[in-house]
Amino acid sequence: MYFSRMTSIKLEAEMVQAELIAVGTELLMGQVVNTNTSYLARKCQENNINVYYHHIVGDNPERLAATFKQALKRSDLVILTGGLGPTEDDLTKQVVAKCLGRELRVDKEASENIRRFHQKLNREITQNNWRQAEYIDGSRILKNHNGLAVGDYFVDNGSSVILLPGPPSEMKMMFEREVLPIWQDTFKSNGVMRNKILRFYGIGESKLTTEIQDIIESQVNPTVASYVNDYEVSLRLTANASDDTSAAVLLRDTGKKIKERVGEYCFSDDQFESLEYAVVYYLTEKGLTISAAESLTAGLFQAMVADAPGASKVLTGGMVTYQTIEKERLLGIPEEIVDTFGVVSSECAAEMAKRVKEKTGSDIGVGLTGVAGPETQEGKEVGTVFIGLAYDDSVRVKELHLSGVRVAVRKKAVKEALNLVIKNIIA
Amino acid sequence: MYFSRMTSIKLEAEMVQAELIAVGTELLMGQVVNTNTSYLARKCQENNINVYYHHIVGDNPERLAATFKQALKRSDLVILTGGLGPTEDDLTKQVVAKCLGRELRVDKEASENIRRFHQKLNREITQNNWRQAEYIDGSRILKNHNGLAVGDYFVDNGSSVILLPGPPSEMKMMFEREVLPIWQDTFKSNGVMRNKILRFYGIGESKLTTEIQDIIESQVNPTVASYVNDYEVSLRLTANASDDTSAAVLLRDTGKKIKERVGEYCFSDDQFESLEYAVVYYLTEKGLTISAAESLTAGLFQAMVADAPGASKVLTGGMVTYQTIEKERLLGIPEEIVDTFGVVSSECAAEMAKRVKEKTGSDIGVGLTGVAGPETQEGKEVGTVFIGLAYDDSVRVKELHLSGVRVAVRKKAVKEALNLVIKNIIA
Repeated sequence: MYFSRMTSIKLEAEMVQAELIAVGTELLMGQVVNTNTSYLARKCQENNINVYYHHIVGDNPERLAATFKQALKRSDLVILTGGLGPTEDDLTKQVVAKCLGRELRVDKEASENIRRFHQKLNREITQNNWRQAEYIDGSRILKNHNGLAVGDYFVDNGSSVILLPGPPSEMKMMFEREVLPIWQDTFKSNGVMRNKILRFYGIGESKLTTEIQDIIESQVNPTVASYVNDYEVSLRLTANASDDTSAAVLLRDTGKKIKERVGEYCFSDDQFESLEYAVVYYLTEKGLTISAAESLTAGLFQAMVADAPGASKVLTGGMVTYQTIEKERLLGIPEEIVDTFGVVSSECAAEMAKRVKEKTGSDIGVGLTGVAGPETQEGKEVGTVFIGLAYDDSVRVKELHLSGVRVAVRKKAVKEALNLVIKNIIA
Repeated sequence: MYFSRMTSIKLEAEMVQAELIAVGTELLMGQVVNTNTSYLARKCQENNINVYYHHIVGDNPERLAATFKQALKRSDLVILTGGLGPTEDDLTKQVVAKCLGRELRVDKEASENIRRFHQKLNREITQNNWRQAEYIDGSRILKNHNGLAVGDYFVDNGSSVILLPGPPSEMKMMFEREVLPIWQDTFKSNGVMRNKILRFYGIGESKLTTEIQDIIESQVNPTVASYVNDYEVSLRLTANASDDTSAAVLLRDTGKKIKERVGEYCFSDDQFESLEYAVVYYLTEKGLTISAAESLTAGLFQAMVADAPGASKVLTGGMVTYQTIEKERLLGIPEEIVDTFGVVSSECAAEMAKRVKEKTGSDIGVGLTGVAGPETQEGKEVGTVFIGLAYDDSVRVKELHLSGVRVAVRKKAVKEALNLVIKNIIA
């Protein structure tokens, strides 16, 4: 019911074609990065919807109208995010309604929510607040489970239009609870498009794609595409099939061919979102715990491990020995080591790893020390990093020379440490 | 020379009008978030260029051509990022050249760089690699200081076109070293558009804008717009003036009017990018050091403080006492406290703050404990957080009930702790 028009483009028969529009001057001016359309693009793909364009427009009625009209003309589905709030700038509903010659109506339930919300906080309701309860005539109202402004879902002249709020927490919850159930009903009978993501660490994108160039070029279903994110290289395999099982077979076979070539760098065959997820999973499986003493990374290793589901079982905690003196105070690293070798040294990294393991009683200790920049330290170049890894009775250290600015060096150091744990202990 | 066509739209006379296009299937599918156009939008604004649209298109020649042609028709400047790499998918140069009927040529210096790069790594050069040395006939070549693919800058029929690489580190460096000098030459004689950003914490966006609604509505120059980022609310004041001094006066006067109303929540009058930058700045000024003992945030407080410039002078380091037992092991928190009150308690937060201050010898100790979720803990709801703050001989604790998922609760807890430090010690 919500997708009556289907595209008839060859090769993509029966695939709905979508266009995403994020509205907001703060996005247009670059003060806030637009993550909403990335999220929606992933959700579209999971539901066999082809996204062809994303756009950002500001809170400007003419340019929003122009972008919306063009999108509606060439796409089966247009999703807009943002501009549903209570301020004068928020005009997405108004503009869309005007483009289509539809009226705005007021939803009683949403009005009641606005009234209750303000009552509870003892706040006066301004006239503008009621805008959040408005919906476009003829649309299905999308409830906001995390805020006040309702969304819209309607079909106009065969194309579907969805309006969602701008704050990501409101947008995502509205999408998941209100839009997704409609889609799942609609698309049950279509074929499926499924992804498999292989993730690699320790190999560059161009080397990786060169190694499997013939596979990439000869593959039609699944297709293979590479991309880089957070210093990890990924291959996205995308299969079209009549059902889940057939898609899974296609993905598995191509995945296997790729791993025969470059499997040594592959840490995730679709199971893990990142190295830290993989580390937490494998440590849980082996019943091992991990701790860290961090200098240049200042807690980032532990914070990233804690982001992974189930981290509380494997991450004991540890130290942030950011200033030199804390290496002695918190970890008891002998002054001689610091004096003789410096804090940016193999010896110091080894001691950090060993001592944090002892102090926390964990199975694995990681020590991270180095020069994040912008200045050199102890005569060592920016990007010089030592990672110590203590496990059983042995300690090993890896020396690295990383490129990039401060934030990049710190994040790369964390990724290298995670990879070391996988390669040396888990795998 | 690089901006020969100026718009004649009223109100925006002499402002160059720009459109940004990010190219890449990984962006279109949402696997990587597009940060390039946000960066470029900020740079455009700093240079008095109005950005009207951002677009994302995939590695698809037809749709890229359609988007590019439309942009070129209605804008004075079109900047494209991505698709300059060595793979078959990278076709931005090819598509743009074809749209304009221009040839591709090979840059000798770039070819030499490619040759040297591969020689050094002992890698074979494939035919595709040379694509990175190609440029569009008639364009000024933009050197890549961080990679191999060169960029382009040319004027076609009065409009300017810039092609930049997709990896943000390459794109930014090419922009700063190659494009910016050209712009600075070109725009010297134009008027200026300047921003001032006021940042607030502890007040919601709608309450803030309601408090100053009359100011927002009556202001024409500077304009005032609100937005939310990372749980901080910001007001962007934008002034148009003949020179820097006049713009500064306009911004200062309106800023003052706003702060008379809501100044108590304002932590930055254009000086700081975030709460952590403010904390590091003020601590440095006062000569104070800070440490933290983190449970639910697992190092995030310290890692975020370390992101701010100059952090090494004020952040001593501290502990990540993620598992309960580490609160005893690393901090020496008495078992009775944990047994009697639980780890998610005011008492535990106070002890953590006090003890990490002692152990590190810092002036201020912060203790963070709480329930990040997804499960409740010790019968306490997800979002329950206690923040301890030890300074001089006193310890105070703030209890919070935060909303959102795991990552949100942890980040909000860090922001609350930073704000507590500002409010109670620095301000």
